[in-house]
Amino acid sequence: MDDGSEGPHGAGPVLPASARTQPPLRRQVFDHVRAQGRAARADVARALGISAASVTAITADLIGLGLLREVEGVSLDGREAARGRPPVALEIVPEGRHVIGVKLGDERHTAVLADFGGRILADAARPARPGRRPLEELLEEVAALVADLRSHAPGQEAAALGIGLPGLVDHRAGRVAWSPLLDGRDLDLRDILAARLGSPVQIDNDSNLLTLAELWFGAGRASSDFAVVTIEHGVGMGLVQGGRLFRGTRGMGLELGHIKVRLDGALCRCGQRGCLEAYLADYALAREAATALGRDPRQSQSPRAMLDTLFSEAKAGHEPAREIFVRAGRYLALGLANVVQLFDPGLVILSGERMRYDFLYAEEVLAEMQRLVLPGGRPPVRVEVHAWGDLVWAQGAAALALMAATDEVLGA
Amino acid sequence: MDDGSEGPHGAGPVLPASARTQPPLRRQVFDHVRAQGRAARADVARALGISAASVTAITADLIGLGLLREVEGVSLDGREAARGRPPVALEIVPEGRHVIGVKLGDERHTAVLADFGGRILADAARPARPGRRPLEELLEEVAALVADLRSHAPGQEAAALGIGLPGLVDHRAGRVAWSPLLDGRDLDLRDILAARLGSPVQIDNDSNLLTLAELWFGAGRASSDFAVVTIEHGVGMGLVQGGRLFRGTRGMGLELGHIKVRLDGALCRCGQRGCLEAYLADYALAREAATALGRDPRQSQSPRAMLDTLFSEAKAGHEPAREIFVRAGRYLALGLANVVQLFDPGLVILSGERMRYDFLYAEEVLAEMQRLVLPGGRPPVRVEVHAWGDLVWAQGAAALALMAATDEVLGA
Repeated sequence: MDDGSEGPHGAGPVLPASARTQPPLRRQVFDHVRAQGRAARADVARALGISAASVTAITADLIGLGLLREVEGVSLDGREAARGRPPVALEIVPEGRHVIGVKLGDERHTAVLADFGGRILADAARPARPGRRPLEELLEEVAALVADLRSHAPGQEAAALGIGLPGLVDHRAGRVAWSPLLDGRDLDLRDILAARLGSPVQIDNDSNLLTLAELWFGAGRASSDFAVVTIEHGVGMGLVQGGRLFRGTRGMGLELGHIKVRLDGALCRCGQRGCLEAYLADYALAREAATALGRDPRQSQSPRAMLDTLFSEAKAGHEPAREIFVRAGRYLALGLANVVQLFDPGLVILSGERMRYDFLYAEEVLAEMQRLVLPGGRPPVRVEVHAWGDLVWAQGAAALALMAATDEVLGA
Repeated sequence: MDDGSEGPHGAGPVLPASARTQPPLRRQVFDHVRAQGRAARADVARALGISAASVTAITADLIGLGLLREVEGVSLDGREAARGRPPVALEIVPEGRHVIGVKLGDERHTAVLADFGGRILADAARPARPGRRPLEELLEEVAALVADLRSHAPGQEAAALGIGLPGLVDHRAGRVAWSPLLDGRDLDLRDILAARLGSPVQIDNDSNLLTLAELWFGAGRASSDFAVVTIEHGVGMGLVQGGRLFRGTRGMGLELGHIKVRLDGALCRCGQRGCLEAYLADYALAREAATALGRDPRQSQSPRAMLDTLFSEAKAGHEPAREIFVRAGRYLALGLANVVQLFDPGLVILSGERMRYDFLYAEEVLAEMQRLVLPGGRPPVRVEVHAWGDLVWAQGAAALALMAATDEVLGA
């Protein structure tokens, strides 16, 4: 056998790490009941493939912790209770704990208060300004927003807060490498916020919040494999595979806005060249707008106002203005095609503030995206446009806090 | 609250599909014992977070099926047996079943016979020719290779075959959308091979085989999150996340060779423009070689011979030849940077036949790759070059067959 190399094939197989990464059974039981709303023990056993005896022991434990309670009645899915016994089901004790979800944005900040079952009890919002600011200023904005929210629901203490913001956020480490809302780099934002607010805090990239909201409350009802591409001030992405949020090894990844789509290409605000964002984000379009419209670039509008002008000119038939949007749409098609080619999602959801520029999901853009994907003898991937508002992003932040609060009680 | 849209937030949470996608417990127990080599029941219970009673019931079942057996002695990890009892551990019955793994390539085909514990008992190889051929011809090549292998290990029937080949392969559906080794498109290769060989067959993309081999026998020992990028005739990729092989929704995805790195760029053999392969694969380099070397393009060498000539000229200081490799290296850097930016793997493994062109992993290439990744306040991602031979790819194919044979007995 001419193999030409010393392979590792003499060694025996090792434990695939999958066996090590599953949550403990009592966490699985709790998550199942929360997701179902109400479930009989027999249903839990069936769904998780464990014995009735195990379910009885685990649920006794969860009831003792004040997390579950028994209620009369069958499972919400309508299955019969075991013969000869009064029908008893389990449900989450929703008032046991509350969580707060916050979305920080470049136009407004939004917050929701949710119970332990994930239902929203109150919400609040405050206008914000775009651009970077000192950490202290952002902390004050968050504290004021949370105080507003608490005034709508007095007496409700939050067991955890989930907070999302744009930028490079390492969820596990609780650090912000960089955010368009913040001066400085490499900030321990999670711990700083927790100290300021007096509650445990989880932070995440805002695209992950929207993806969590889709998983828990939206597309996740019908699909366990989908990608969410967000176009706001920048370009972001989230991914659900097998019903779980995809997180890279170091809690980052999915930086779709900064994949390189051209060697030595256009300058991006991250300092590199050829990033997708540098062809698609509003600042990228705005910097060509002055040229296209024949304006003096020193008479500066805000990028957003410049973009709105450009958009109405394009709609009115101004050809150079239209070309800017057409080219951006082609780059969006290319970026989406790369997402499909690499992640093969069952569904692509386009979302975010800039989706109101309808050129971005024009038929030609989606057709070009499908053309740029290798034909695999399969129907083209489904694409949906979801123009949810900030409240849904904040609801995703609440889901993040719920997961953390559950981790704390039950283990990850 | 001015939310501006009808969100889905009024609805309650749903079951994250994760709870539905875990393998049954007896499969988890079996996989754990196989991975460990030998394990006491108490260790299995601890590792999987289930009760001793459950483990006892499940292992009795697996022993009854002839899959596990008791042996005297403690777990291989050296833990003590329960006090007061003679030490008893469990192990796979390796001779219970055998599997065959096959790698089909453009220069040779390779096969291995492995026992149910994953150990190689015999191997065989046959030279192959590059290029497409009729399905019937490839079937005959596979049948002859398997006959060779069986003659080395007479009397050993295979419970399943795993077969990998380059191209667009849908593992779940068992279909080949396209392969550089085959005429035609959209072939039900799995079922056709199973009928010809008289055994159950699983097929997969060859990059996934190498990734499985790394997971079971190589990098998977130390890491549960890594990417494998293969440079052979084309550019391929496999990904392990959380100890599992990443598979897209439709069993495809990870088509790194066909992500677009330039809008309206160079023509790829897939028929599209701007694919990474069109700047990096041997055919892409070979088509510039005639120009660089001032040869008459009609005096055609094979792409491989042309590339070898180009490589020695570059080594000898021929500047246009060197420039071709430098540019290809920069595109490889761009492709790898996109992998890191999107998947955030803990480790990137470069592998495959073409890695012998050392320009591809020159320091400058890896330095450029790191430069093209957004700085996240983290050390650069680790990159390793693994120049395994075909036997290791075939061993990955055997792992595929093992998984399928286990699925058949125990459920997925």
